[in-house]
Amino acid sequence: MNTTGTAWRPQTVRRANLSTVLAAVRDRGQASRSELVSATGLTRSAIGGLVAELDELGLVREHGAASDGSPGRPSQVVHVDGRRVGAVAVEIAVDGIGAAIVGLDGTVIHSRRLMRSRETVPVEQTVRDVIGLLRALGVESPTIGGRRLVGLGVAIAGLVDDATNVVVRAPNLGWTDVGLGEALGAQLGFELPVFVANDGDVGALAEVRFGAGVGIGEMLYVSGEVGVGGGLFVGGRRVAGRSGFAGEIGHMPINPDGRPCRCGSSGCWETETGELALLARGGRDSDAGIHALAEMIEAAERGEPRAVAAFADEARWLGLGIAGLINIFDPELVVLGGFFGPILPLIGEQLRREVEARVFLGAARTVPIVASRLGADGGLIGAAELAFEPLVENPLMVR
Amino acid sequence: MNTTGTAWRPQTVRRANLSTVLAAVRDRGQASRSELVSATGLTRSAIGGLVAELDELGLVREHGAASDGSPGRPSQVVHVDGRRVGAVAVEIAVDGIGAAIVGLDGTVIHSRRLMRSRETVPVEQTVRDVIGLLRALGVESPTIGGRRLVGLGVAIAGLVDDATNVVVRAPNLGWTDVGLGEALGAQLGFELPVFVANDGDVGALAEVRFGAGVGIGEMLYVSGEVGVGGGLFVGGRRVAGRSGFAGEIGHMPINPDGRPCRCGSSGCWETETGELALLARGGRDSDAGIHALAEMIEAAERGEPRAVAAFADEARWLGLGIAGLINIFDPELVVLGGFFGPILPLIGEQLRREVEARVFLGAARTVPIVASRLGADGGLIGAAELAFEPLVENPLMVR
Repeated sequence: MNTTGTAWRPQTVRRANLSTVLAAVRDRGQASRSELVSATGLTRSAIGGLVAELDELGLVREHGAASDGSPGRPSQVVHVDGRRVGAVAVEIAVDGIGAAIVGLDGTVIHSRRLMRSRETVPVEQTVRDVIGLLRALGVESPTIGGRRLVGLGVAIAGLVDDATNVVVRAPNLGWTDVGLGEALGAQLGFELPVFVANDGDVGALAEVRFGAGVGIGEMLYVSGEVGVGGGLFVGGRRVAGRSGFAGEIGHMPINPDGRPCRCGSSGCWETETGELALLARGGRDSDAGIHALAEMIEAAERGEPRAVAAFADEARWLGLGIAGLINIFDPELVVLGGFFGPILPLIGEQLRREVEARVFLGAARTVPIVASRLGADGGLIGAAELAFEPLVENPLMVR
Repeated sequence: MNTTGTAWRPQTVRRANLSTVLAAVRDRGQASRSELVSATGLTRSAIGGLVAELDELGLVREHGAASDGSPGRPSQVVHVDGRRVGAVAVEIAVDGIGAAIVGLDGTVIHSRRLMRSRETVPVEQTVRDVIGLLRALGVESPTIGGRRLVGLGVAIAGLVDDATNVVVRAPNLGWTDVGLGEALGAQLGFELPVFVANDGDVGALAEVRFGAGVGIGEMLYVSGEVGVGGGLFVGGRRVAGRSGFAGEIGHMPINPDGRPCRCGSSGCWETETGELALLARGGRDSDAGIHALAEMIEAAERGEPRAVAAFADEARWLGLGIAGLINIFDPELVVLGGFFGPILPLIGEQLRREVEARVFLGAARTVPIVASRLGADGGLIGAAELAFEPLVENPLMVR
């Protein structure tokens, strides 16, 4: 009877082991061989061989750590190699487009942004704008600055079918059933795998890999823009749902008597907590966007009653929803992205009180609520992660 | 360099392979060797050895399938063996206690129930009642009727710390920080591992293994009793959260102007949709419990206006919450347990309309909403699963 490891196909095991080691290094930023042995359950000699192979593939590099003063030679530390492969990242928000080259270590190498009006923008124009940004970044072939590009990742403020890269619905852009992945791939001018995903999922992914959520298995990410989106990590894995549509937390009904939402429902969390609702409550011009928001934050800090009251309402509605999501998920950490991050210093105290009063174990179970650590770059870093995921799954693809 | 499977410790691999095969058979109810090869990625000869070993352990048996008329000998089919190991299952609800012996195939062999008043019941009395029920079932040693018992699983209407088997909070029972697992273990009279979990999680587990959720990776289970609970499955795995407290969907805030909830918050989903709210809206005595509910269902079927209106309200509030949960999770299936199952024929049409109007992709994304298939036995079958999980993880534990 054969129940040892050789029951698995050797090639499958080798690929899986390379993937396990690369993922373990990325999860930690860096790791010693001993840490990799205990993290993966693989033997020390196997780790040695796998690290050497990942180095040959241009994915990790190993060098001596600074001596800690203890006797003996300094131990070798394995790092992600950010210099040899890269991803192209694109973010399509309601008020603008961003693009970047990102290294395998999550570093944004170059980036460009284009602000656009909040009027709904036709798909064709958006594709042209994206390609224009990429050309400006120098993206013209599968190699840039000595870096091999492994894919193009796109974050968009809409519902995306992961399997087909189709934007099924983006109410705040006015798009329905847009084959965005295909359109971008066709205009790119060279072959590159394209991955499109919802911006909330992508933002959450970035925080888990490189931001406030590093090392956190159970994370709730809540992001406020014109729309409110989010992403959920359970056991260190993104919750995608049946069709990749999970995380539409902005559309949980929160106010049975609330106003109509652009999604067709009413009283959605987004209609109470999104940028438009906040600006309207503060008596600001909602078309002025983040500039009006910045002005309103200042006004609230000065004590302007209308601005203060608007942020108090914001804290209340945000707290209602976050409390519900904590009761549903029991996360270790709640990370606030988009404009929810910058307003946290202003509303944090009331928000936490509101949440504590409604969480099932109350004060006994304080879940930290923190601002995104990546800020405005989060979307681009997360979009690049989409392109890196298949590589981490199968490091041999760059052979 | 060694990157083949022998980088893993052989004993770890053997245990993992036995577990993989046992889990694959259980997931399917039964499976041919060919199905196991494709389900597990193991070789045919490895499957043969593993099945033989699981048979020796008393966990599966193999016999010829009914011939399908095609030539050649009938292929062998591997089944879970329900005769040789078993689990003790206990369910502690607000209005009674149930206990059972359950086979590894999910069959309830014997069960007993004890109805109790809805007054809060002291812990000591509850432990005595449970032990009494177990004695009445003949549970006196780790073997019963030739079956080896692998554990005692307990489902309870409260929040449970999975690691310690402590009932942290059960507002509807009036319990806080009760070491229920330890107390039951001490009174049992013989050594048996005890596993305590929230009834919503346990009900969901039963549906996934043996009920409406078989083969479903992304399932939302919503159960109505006095309390409203639930369980979530993502990628075929139960969402537990940081401390096992996930799934408290009954305490998502749904009505900002709602009444106080026993949890300390107000306007929780449970306060609008639980049994007490439904009976109160129908003008029924809420202490009469399921009898009053049965009478009210009949009255609504006859067209009694107050009962009809109460069920219409129930459909509306239930729909609001289910729509939110669908937007958050994108499940393949919603399963309704507790009294939500039996009232589904009455409220289903309105409920589905309500959900469709609020789900992000509306009618384009109809998620089936069905009643639990296990009915009243679900809690006991799920409680037994708690005890079987470590065995499936490591089949060698019964060696």
